[in-house]
Amino acid sequence: MSETHKANLMDSTLNKPIRVGILGFGGLGQAAARVLAGKQEMIWVAAADKQGWAYNGTGLDPDRAIATYHNQGSLGYLEPAGTLSNNTIADLIENAAVDGYFLALPNLPNTFMASVARQFIQSGWRGVLVDALKRTSAVEQLLAMKDELQEAGITYMAGCGATPGLLTAAAAIAAQSYAEIHSVKITFGVGIANWEAYRATIREDIAHLPGYDVEQARQMSDADVEALLDQTNGILTLENMEHADDIMLELAGICSRDRVTVGGVVDTRNPKKPLSTNVQITGRTFEGKTSTHTFTLGDETSMAANVCGPAFGYLKAGISLHQRGLCGLLTAAEVMPHFVR
Amino acid sequence: MSETHKANLMDSTLNKPIRVGILGFGGLGQAAARVLAGKQEMIWVAAADKQGWAYNGTGLDPDRAIATYHNQGSLGYLEPAGTLSNNTIADLIENAAVDGYFLALPNLPNTFMASVARQFIQSGWRGVLVDALKRTSAVEQLLAMKDELQEAGITYMAGCGATPGLLTAAAAIAAQSYAEIHSVKITFGVGIANWEAYRATIREDIAHLPGYDVEQARQMSDADVEALLDQTNGILTLENMEHADDIMLELAGICSRDRVTVGGVVDTRNPKKPLSTNVQITGRTFEGKTSTHTFTLGDETSMAANVCGPAFGYLKAGISLHQRGLCGLLTAAEVMPHFVR
Repeated sequence: MSETHKANLMDSTLNKPIRVGILGFGGLGQAAARVLAGKQEMIWVAAADKQGWAYNGTGLDPDRAIATYHNQGSLGYLEPAGTLSNNTIADLIENAAVDGYFLALPNLPNTFMASVARQFIQSGWRGVLVDALKRTSAVEQLLAMKDELQEAGITYMAGCGATPGLLTAAAAIAAQSYAEIHSVKITFGVGIANWEAYRATIREDIAHLPGYDVEQARQMSDADVEALLDQTNGILTLENMEHADDIMLELAGICSRDRVTVGGVVDTRNPKKPLSTNVQITGRTFEGKTSTHTFTLGDETSMAANVCGPAFGYLKAGISLHQRGLCGLLTAAEVMPHFVR
Repeated sequence: MSETHKANLMDSTLNKPIRVGILGFGGLGQAAARVLAGKQEMIWVAAADKQGWAYNGTGLDPDRAIATYHNQGSLGYLEPAGTLSNNTIADLIENAAVDGYFLALPNLPNTFMASVARQFIQSGWRGVLVDALKRTSAVEQLLAMKDELQEAGITYMAGCGATPGLLTAAAAIAAQSYAEIHSVKITFGVGIANWEAYRATIREDIAHLPGYDVEQARQMSDADVEALLDQTNGILTLENMEHADDIMLELAGICSRDRVTVGGVVDTRNPKKPLSTNVQITGRTFEGKTSTHTFTLGDETSMAANVCGPAFGYLKAGISLHQRGLCGLLTAAEVMPHFVR
């Protein structure tokens, strides 16, 4: 070893708050803004939606931003921080001083997250990107950009929401008791009072249903979605979903992706969860015993809490890695998130 | 940022197996040797007990080592790898080529782990040390040596067993859903068929009982322990234990140590666990809801599996950090363990 560095890799003493941007301002982006409002170690300075962006180096107000978005349809109308634009992400990157972005973007089309990552690479911006993407194929696209991200000086933290994210990390911890992992089974319950607050998320879920694909789901009108939900009494039951938990656990060396399954039940008409979200990790111990560890989320934690909390925890961890020059692609199964105060 | 390093901090591709030493060869040390026998990424090359040490750069055989220890009382009698010594740890450090040691040592006296760390510092050895210590005060002693460990080029991973360790890490992950953590409650169940296989561990547990302290427990003869266990029908019920999970979660910025409690039930006459080991993480979400996440270990995972697995997972993570020049003191709540294949 050539030299000793600062001792504590995970030292979380920050001199000044991390300046955070949010890309996408639907249900998830708005929840993220509210989560950040309670943090001393982070400051929400920037956001973009399809039609505009807003930036204030001393901080944006979530109440005003959300009201403007609801009333006028874009953050671009926010006074005086907003700007309307046909190229919102590129304009925001160029005009805002931001340490890390949370990509609270629709997962559809499935190439969208990678195309946004490419915009960041091309812009010359350096910092940390965190996503809460869901599909295995979306991580594969980012994985193919690993070297470019590294060369660009970007630390990209992929799959850092609830699942993949919180539950994948719990599975990675639980795996430590075993010599071999037989299965990782993720079962989620989501209850939302009003599906229209999560239009993009619900379309993504529909794309996982038998008989549907990503393109079909994307092209459904709100009326089409409403009609489908009327047929199912507002319930979406999902099995064997394409979910990036599998590739993330494989990349972390824990088990091959075919041993990871994800399914769940989404109730679009009831904020109460139809079942408790959990992950079961089954394996063989060194003594030859088969056993199952279970990590169960409390029903009172919302999807927003379980996605945005981890996303910012990984963003903080990513900033620490980035400050040490560690760039490229990492996932929630490989890095311990830091707690953001 | 001055330069870009190798992208993947957590890259777990190893050119050759990690050479592992085990200090202490009681129940835990022997289990550790058996765990390592199933690993391709690690090779067990060295061990020491009170009276002797053994070293073979191409690997030690757990069956022969354990038989020798049982039959003759020390690894020093192992042919041809063993050497009897009055200074086993220092002699082993000097004579063995080891990348990382698992300190499977008694926690009593409570200064023992820190005194062993000091021996490593004084020897000039550089590498990774992992312990499975239990008491808060033992971590405090190591914390006071943080700068010395760093200067010595040692990456010390503290509290990397089951609790603290596996359960602390799970709590650190679970905390991400919350804006504030109200409580972390760890409850463990341990069942062992024969307490005599874990003499040191049982004495440590007794030291937590009302009316006992560390010094009293240490001085108890086997007959004294037997007499106590006869009174309790072999059951030890432990509450509000001094356990390092508290300081580890505090150091990781998750909550103050007074919000962390540890207790459990140990059945010394039955391999079946008297209850399922679990950790409950209760907090307040950004929306003001109170909720509890629960991580429950499968009953079929033994104490040995839940301690040794994480210990080697953290050892592997520690090697990765050490190779990047990151030395000093870290805990299981700050670093994601790597899965050892």
